[in-house]
Amino acid sequence: LTKAARRSDEPARVEQLIGSFLTGQSGSAVGPPEGPGVLLLAGADSKDDCAVFEVSDRTCVVVGSDYVRGPKFALYEMGLLSNFDVGYYLAIANISDVAAMGAAPIGMLSVVRYPREMSDSEFYEVMAGIHQGCTDCGTLIVGGDIGGAERLILSGSALGVVDRDKLLLRRGAHSGDLLCVTGPCGVLGAAVAYFPRRNEIEQGLSPETEAKLLHSWKRPRARVAEGRALATKPFATACQDSSDGLKATIEQICEASGVGFDVEESAVPIAGEVRAVAEAIGVNQFTLAMSASSDFQLVFTLDPSDLNACRDLFRSLGLVFHVIGQATRSGMARAVAPDGTARPLPGVAWKHQQSNISTLVVDGGG
Amino acid sequence: LTKAARRSDEPARVEQLIGSFLTGQSGSAVGPPEGPGVLLLAGADSKDDCAVFEVSDRTCVVVGSDYVRGPKFALYEMGLLSNFDVGYYLAIANISDVAAMGAAPIGMLSVVRYPREMSDSEFYEVMAGIHQGCTDCGTLIVGGDIGGAERLILSGSALGVVDRDKLLLRRGAHSGDLLCVTGPCGVLGAAVAYFPRRNEIEQGLSPETEAKLLHSWKRPRARVAEGRALATKPFATACQDSSDGLKATIEQICEASGVGFDVEESAVPIAGEVRAVAEAIGVNQFTLAMSASSDFQLVFTLDPSDLNACRDLFRSLGLVFHVIGQATRSGMARAVAPDGTARPLPGVAWKHQQSNISTLVVDGGG
Repeated sequence: LTKAARRSDEPARVEQLIGSFLTGQSGSAVGPPEGPGVLLLAGADSKDDCAVFEVSDRTCVVVGSDYVRGPKFALYEMGLLSNFDVGYYLAIANISDVAAMGAAPIGMLSVVRYPREMSDSEFYEVMAGIHQGCTDCGTLIVGGDIGGAERLILSGSALGVVDRDKLLLRRGAHSGDLLCVTGPCGVLGAAVAYFPRRNEIEQGLSPETEAKLLHSWKRPRARVAEGRALATKPFATACQDSSDGLKATIEQICEASGVGFDVEESAVPIAGEVRAVAEAIGVNQFTLAMSASSDFQLVFTLDPSDLNACRDLFRSLGLVFHVIGQATRSGMARAVAPDGTARPLPGVAWKHQQSNISTLVVDGGG
Repeated sequence: LTKAARRSDEPARVEQLIGSFLTGQSGSAVGPPEGPGVLLLAGADSKDDCAVFEVSDRTCVVVGSDYVRGPKFALYEMGLLSNFDVGYYLAIANISDVAAMGAAPIGMLSVVRYPREMSDSEFYEVMAGIHQGCTDCGTLIVGGDIGGAERLILSGSALGVVDRDKLLLRRGAHSGDLLCVTGPCGVLGAAVAYFPRRNEIEQGLSPETEAKLLHSWKRPRARVAEGRALATKPFATACQDSSDGLKATIEQICEASGVGFDVEESAVPIAGEVRAVAEAIGVNQFTLAMSASSDFQLVFTLDPSDLNACRDLFRSLGLVFHVIGQATRSGMARAVAPDGTARPLPGVAWKHQQSNISTLVVDGGG
């Protein structure tokens, strides 16, 4: 390809093409010279789930944006997800980014542009889904943009607040820290791997398993309570949501923190639905659990000396997490089998430019 | 139409369909119970250009989102605007909303999703345009969402800060206040009215006039300095950007403030390009200047006793504004001709669901 026609993937575009626009932001003063001082603690160069502004002594506002596919959102196009469901998903995808910073959500802006043929009742369903997603996270639709477009377009931004000393970032993990996750990953990805090829599979899954797979898309959960709990001391030394899949999330914390990780294969929680899909489509269940999937779990690291206190706090709040590995000095993210052999983390990381299901690039829809 | 198939326009959808999701927000506490208090001073029910959070004593963060058409952005599709231009426009459209609140911009989140066939260099041009728009307003791209989609999608959110006592809202105009605007309106709308039918027009416009019309789209200006100046005392009792066109903007301030306005036809500044287009396509120039057009001027009201001080401040900063009318107790926005006769404001307000140029619904592209 000539230079003019080259089409790099998303990470390359961010790093190589527009990196110069984003570099050196974090730590700079961005407020008006005569007004209240505003510090950009984490800008685009920080590559966290949200940008972070310290707007007054210790109070930080975090804000992130997530676009969600409407059309081309495979399960929506198949009629398996409703307008309400995609609205709900939009809210959770955005609020999850706030949760990953340890922040409490304070509002969401929703961008909903719809085609001429979308009726009032269909439009209402999308908005009702966004509203319910916000309500379930204790927050509000405070603004956004509504109007026509040639097809349904869904995007949003969510805001939250957190004390500067409790802010959770992707960087901060140290060698020896425990690697943890709030629950099983890969469920949403498994659903996208399964439903489009359901008719080609000899033995389909049970109605209960199919319902669980769909429910993961219909009513995802933003880990707001978990994020706030991790921010109490703060316990977490690094944190990120798993919306790109567990492999990609671990590798991103790895890079941001400058550590490696040894992930104990046998310690990674795998949902029954993921096991069932892995068997049905003939892929390894651990690989499927690690692959691209926007589950919105929190992946975080803990100093081992905080493990018991953090576990007690989670238990007292009715929450759980799983220790799945440990940070190392290797600089590499590895999977360690029960027999002690190590290999690079399996699984297919999210790439926006690829969505061919046959290569097990599980398109998260986000 | 049956209820299920009904398709209302945007204002009806916001008011009647989803109003219950948005009502009663403004003035509510939205922060975490144990954390710093956060007050939602202006939520979606306030219908201002941005939502406003008071995040600490007196410091407010304002945030708004604007979607911009890529495809279906008429002049872009005609090849008259470049990828850089639409990126630049996206930044200005978003930052303008911050300016209208009297706030200083502190950052922008840009959502850029692109089709598979978009090359690296085309993508770079879009991002370079956004970056330049931010830079020209003294701010940064602090985050957002980049990735694939089936066609180009551009959306954004901009944030700003302002002292609570200097915040500018749409409500606040009183009977007797002067109605003002920072410059001529209708230029962008005139461009959209002209170029698609240029070949049907017997006598085309001069290259200089065409260049001015295009420049209004290529390098729009967010009135950040003007907004900050209006917020100094604050001078403005109400303020809004003119991105829906002058008629719609005046009517929105009218409704939000519970006043009427008498607009002096002869006092409304009309750009030479707008006069030329009006003549070429055979519409009234005042009507064209009032119609839908995303010029990003600020429309505001002033207590008459502040007129001289505000004018002096603007002059000292190299800025201008025009007094075009006065707030009344009539509750109606009227145009007053030189002979004293009054009529409802002419012009066609923005409606997202209509874009047939032949009815002079000038589609602003936003």
